Amino acid sequence: MALMRAVVFKGVGQIVVEDKPVPQILEPTDVIMKVELAGICGSDLHWFRGHQKISPNFIPGHEFVGSVHSVGDAVRKFQQGDHVVSPFTAQCGECFYCRRKQTSRCDKSLLFGNRSHGIGIDGGQAEYVRVPFADTTLVHSPQTVRSELLVLMSDIFPTGYFCAARFLKDMSREEAQESVVVVVGCGPVGICAIASALTWCPTVYAIDMVPGRLAEAQKMGAKPLRVDENPESAIKEATNGRGADVVLEVVGTQEAMQLSLSMVRPFGHISSVGVCMGDYTFSGPELHGKNATIAWGRCPVRGIFEESLECLARVQSQVAFLCGLHMALEDAPRAYEMFNQRKAHKIILKF
Amino acid sequence: MALMRAVVFKGVGQIVVEDKPVPQILEPTDVIMKVELAGICGSDLHWFRGHQKISPNFIPGHEFVGSVHSVGDAVRKFQQGDHVVSPFTAQCGECFYCRRKQTSRCDKSLLFGNRSHGIGIDGGQAEYVRVPFADTTLVHSPQTVRSELLVLMSDIFPTGYFCAARFLKDMSREEAQESVVVVVGCGPVGICAIASALTWCPTVYAIDMVPGRLAEAQKMGAKPLRVDENPESAIKEATNGRGADVVLEVVGTQEAMQLSLSMVRPFGHISSVGVCMGDYTFSGPELHGKNATIAWGRCPVRGIFEESLECLARVQSQVAFLCGLHMALEDAPRAYEMFNQRKAHKIILKF
Repeated sequence: MALMRAVVFKGVGQIVVEDKPVPQILEPTDVIMKVELAGICGSDLHWFRGHQKISPNFIPGHEFVGSVHSVGDAVRKFQQGDHVVSPFTAQCGECFYCRRKQTSRCDKSLLFGNRSHGIGIDGGQAEYVRVPFADTTLVHSPQTVRSELLVLMSDIFPTGYFCAARFLKDMSREEAQESVVVVVGCGPVGICAIASALTWCPTVYAIDMVPGRLAEAQKMGAKPLRVDENPESAIKEATNGRGADVVLEVVGTQEAMQLSLSMVRPFGHISSVGVCMGDYTFSGPELHGKNATIAWGRCPVRGIFEESLECLARVQSQVAFLCGLHMALEDAPRAYEMFNQRKAHKIILKF
Repeated sequence: MALMRAVVFKGVGQIVVEDKPVPQILEPTDVIMKVELAGICGSDLHWFRGHQKISPNFIPGHEFVGSVHSVGDAVRKFQQGDHVVSPFTAQCGECFYCRRKQTSRCDKSLLFGNRSHGIGIDGGQAEYVRVPFADTTLVHSPQTVRSELLVLMSDIFPTGYFCAARFLKDMSREEAQESVVVVVGCGPVGICAIASALTWCPTVYAIDMVPGRLAEAQKMGAKPLRVDENPESAIKEATNGRGADVVLEVVGTQEAMQLSLSMVRPFGHISSVGVCMGDYTFSGPELHGKNATIAWGRCPVRGIFEESLECLARVQSQVAFLCGLHMALEDAPRAYEMFNQRKAHKIILKF
């Protein structure tokens, strides 16, 4: 049996690199990919830290790019050697949701590198990975974006774009120009949301508690606000007391959502991609009194791949700093530790 | 001082009819209206029952039609004798919100017949009522709807229409034809929401616990479901296990909202006009996992008056039964008691 090196989750806070069998074609629609770059994502910390209960001994990684190593008999669009990007889910391309580009809710959806959802499969932090439904999952590596940034297209750039686009892309140009947008949370997804929002709206505020993150948001053209310095009153001041037209919530906590609701103007919109593990509690009179509209949920990466790629092509130089730190696969345990201690925006494992 | 007869709230459960001064023009933009018909609305029960704390000695009534009795010097669009309808709010017509037709959040918004919001003014359950900002509040009584139904245009028909239109009116014809809509709550606003929804979508389910209400919803063309007979599983069955595309929530309780969330499909929409006095609690993973979009809030009656009137003109024969019970102004105490005991859909005081 051919072996490969792979990152393996052994339990809360425990990551090792060990030998695993090279995955094989199981279905005729599978591709086996040879991985070149694989990202560690903020959502990987959910199970690494034990906030998300998950059984051990799986290969993590839902952000990966590489080349096609072998193809199943039914694969039509890819052949050996093709350079490809994978979204963080695999999808059938045929069901009710896939036909509507709502691919994150595909009836047969599979999630790379996370066993907690009952739909998890081994991920891409390994030399090889099996990609089911390859024709409706993989994308040929585009030429418009620098290759070392393509790993952003598996999850965080489309997710930030999705968060921003949900209520901004259908605005008239005039309305977008006049709108005030606030992004709550300036981690990597927040940075991608800010970059996307700025392509529609010149006025984007960025809220975080980490000064370094705020400095980066500011460099991109956002107006930084510290979460502990009453950002609500700053937003009210900037809008004649009304509040923001659109708030992008990228944190996923009760506090972040309540802050978003406090800052949004009546008839405004909140777009949330933050993953909250607990409950949200909201005041009924506040929601009614604000005429609030709130949208939650997971980004359908494959469904919006093309439009979010177009956006990344425009803003790639602004978000390139997210991909600044490469480490070797064998260094994965140290990489997770560094990432857990917030010593890097993002770490990319290189093969 | 000229006197008139008026309904007056004296405390929880206490309604009297007594002499009050006829209101006078206070601002040049005022109209004094002579009331002909005034409705009692479900939301009047909030303060009548004491669920909404409110100081006594005000004249209730936010649904009223009649004729112009006198006009202030700055009123341009109305003259003595004109037949008019009033929305349940008065609005300036000039502010940020009014320019966007979001009139329920007008900077100078005034609310007829409800003192609890700090913006309340005396209402229309009286022989005369003062209407501020008359040019941007009142509407000439239209000819397209039977005059005895026009009182529906003050609040409940536009509110039901608003609830339905929020996510249905921008659908393509094909999408609307294929969509499954569920209305939670078949009180008078729910009936108006059902009638409106049916103008776009042939498949509308109606949920309530009162068999008589469900029978009326069914007569209109909706499919009735009892709330205590697992409506969720009926909706799942009707949609290949997916859930409803759009849920219209017209109750305003945690239970009704949780039921709505349980029934809506991933990437579906919930439109809520129910007024919840307490908190809502939602599961973060459920909201994220459903990719739910929820919109709350008060109907901007004046902003959508024309489009909702067009809809009422089409469905008036279906909702006419809501206006079946007329009582004399002097009978108001008995009318409130009957309404409180749910012995009528709606009671209209006649002058």
